[in-house]
Amino acid sequence: MEPFIRKRTSKRRVQQVRSHSIRIRQDALAVEEPMEIRLSFPELDEPFPVAVTMRTPGNDFELAAGFLLTEGILSSADEVHSITYCRDPQTDGRQQYNIVNIRLRPGISVDRNRLQRHFFTNSSCGVCGKASLDAIRIQGIHPVSGDLLIRPSVIHGLGDALRREQDIFDQTGGLHAAGWFDPSGTLIALREDVGRHNAVDKLLGHAFLEKKTPLSDAILMVSGRTSFEIMQKAAVAGIPVVCAVSAPTSLACDTAREFNITLIGFARGERYNIYTGRHRIDNG
Amino acid sequence: MEPFIRKRTSKRRVQQVRSHSIRIRQDALAVEEPMEIRLSFPELDEPFPVAVTMRTPGNDFELAAGFLLTEGILSSADEVHSITYCRDPQTDGRQQYNIVNIRLRPGISVDRNRLQRHFFTNSSCGVCGKASLDAIRIQGIHPVSGDLLIRPSVIHGLGDALRREQDIFDQTGGLHAAGWFDPSGTLIALREDVGRHNAVDKLLGHAFLEKKTPLSDAILMVSGRTSFEIMQKAAVAGIPVVCAVSAPTSLACDTAREFNITLIGFARGERYNIYTGRHRIDNG
Repeated sequence: MEPFIRKRTSKRRVQQVRSHSIRIRQDALAVEEPMEIRLSFPELDEPFPVAVTMRTPGNDFELAAGFLLTEGILSSADEVHSITYCRDPQTDGRQQYNIVNIRLRPGISVDRNRLQRHFFTNSSCGVCGKASLDAIRIQGIHPVSGDLLIRPSVIHGLGDALRREQDIFDQTGGLHAAGWFDPSGTLIALREDVGRHNAVDKLLGHAFLEKKTPLSDAILMVSGRTSFEIMQKAAVAGIPVVCAVSAPTSLACDTAREFNITLIGFARGERYNIYTGRHRIDNG
Repeated sequence: MEPFIRKRTSKRRVQQVRSHSIRIRQDALAVEEPMEIRLSFPELDEPFPVAVTMRTPGNDFELAAGFLLTEGILSSADEVHSITYCRDPQTDGRQQYNIVNIRLRPGISVDRNRLQRHFFTNSSCGVCGKASLDAIRIQGIHPVSGDLLIRPSVIHGLGDALRREQDIFDQTGGLHAAGWFDPSGTLIALREDVGRHNAVDKLLGHAFLEKKTPLSDAILMVSGRTSFEIMQKAAVAGIPVVCAVSAPTSLACDTAREFNITLIGFARGERYNIYTGRHRIDNG
């Protein structure tokens, strides 16, 4: 477990202008700090820097694990020996908590070529930083099984449940949320971040470290839009239903179809759009 | 100039659920496709792949140029010999328009170490894909001059002007916009993309190719939030005022202060918050 919880919001002095009045107040902003993910191999002395993402501190170990999972580098929590913050005494104290080192067990090998060639990446984009078009698609992802059936009333409640839970944490108007729901609509876990993709990686990293992946009966609810990369992450984690408050992109839609994922957008109470995989919605 | 305009929206069949009614309709989604940016050096045969970003097609050459500008690789349009789509006959026709090659003039050198070490990146994140914490900050950016003075009434109108113009293009609910306004509040140019950072890079690439950078009397208005990377891009382009519809992050705020940029958030008509650089707002 992570040793402590770091601040997710930070106060800044702001001049609040309302027509012709100005008042000074303290505003809580979502904290954004860089985090470097490093991978250590038992047979190498030096950890290998994999990526930097701008993230909101908190659930950093889950973020690192989720990132390596959804980039296709790790496939089982058993491959992980330990996850620690940087302990290099030459790194200043504050930065040590912006560097997470995932140490693999002896005998575990990852595709080094892929690591070095493509420079994994992350964040609200998720794809950026990859060197070439070839690097975008993670190989070996299978379509998701089509068995799960969801009642429409479950979908109706997802947005409110996410927002209700998110309100507890987010006073900034600046954090994205990703929620993992069971088929009855019960929230299992929720993670937040300034980056949409980080929120998903934290959530999936949590499930991964708890050995709950593949999430074959999970509904993933995200607070924003769905992009190619969100759908690819869902596919890697074996999630059958992805639901979003806002619009999907064209490629999100095509990727959902390719991996047999039910994709729902503009989910606002009893109004929602089904883009793919309607066979999982039980209209009685 | 780019040879033609590609589609920015694409129709998908969708089941629109409203309480207990379901109807089938065609929904226009924002197109998301990968684009690879390559840099060619006169003395090398092979272009060097720099980054891939998920973008909405259109203004691709501006996006590539803006990306290389805001990553600190290019500093003048005179360094650019040509910008073309991929002409490699071995690449299939559709993908050729997802690869943009920027060819430098003879004698122009860029920091190759930086190129290879850090693997530039982009998109709604902007930072992701960089290898290490050192790679995040672009060196040699100077604080922006403090001379510009803006009337509050100009700020009042920015959000509406951006939205009005954006509505023409965006029927998808999924595109971010970045607008370049002059000090009187007149819109000079607007660019859209599924990625927040791409919209800014397209806009700044446009100004760069028109030899209008540094944009020392520009107001940059963005449709979403402001992050570290948006502020760093603004700083590279010398923009004194950045205005956003939503919240800044903590690091956006700190970066704005560092580079003497006026940062405005939650700009909604006559209501807005000034986070940094209030000296540029003329309450006179």
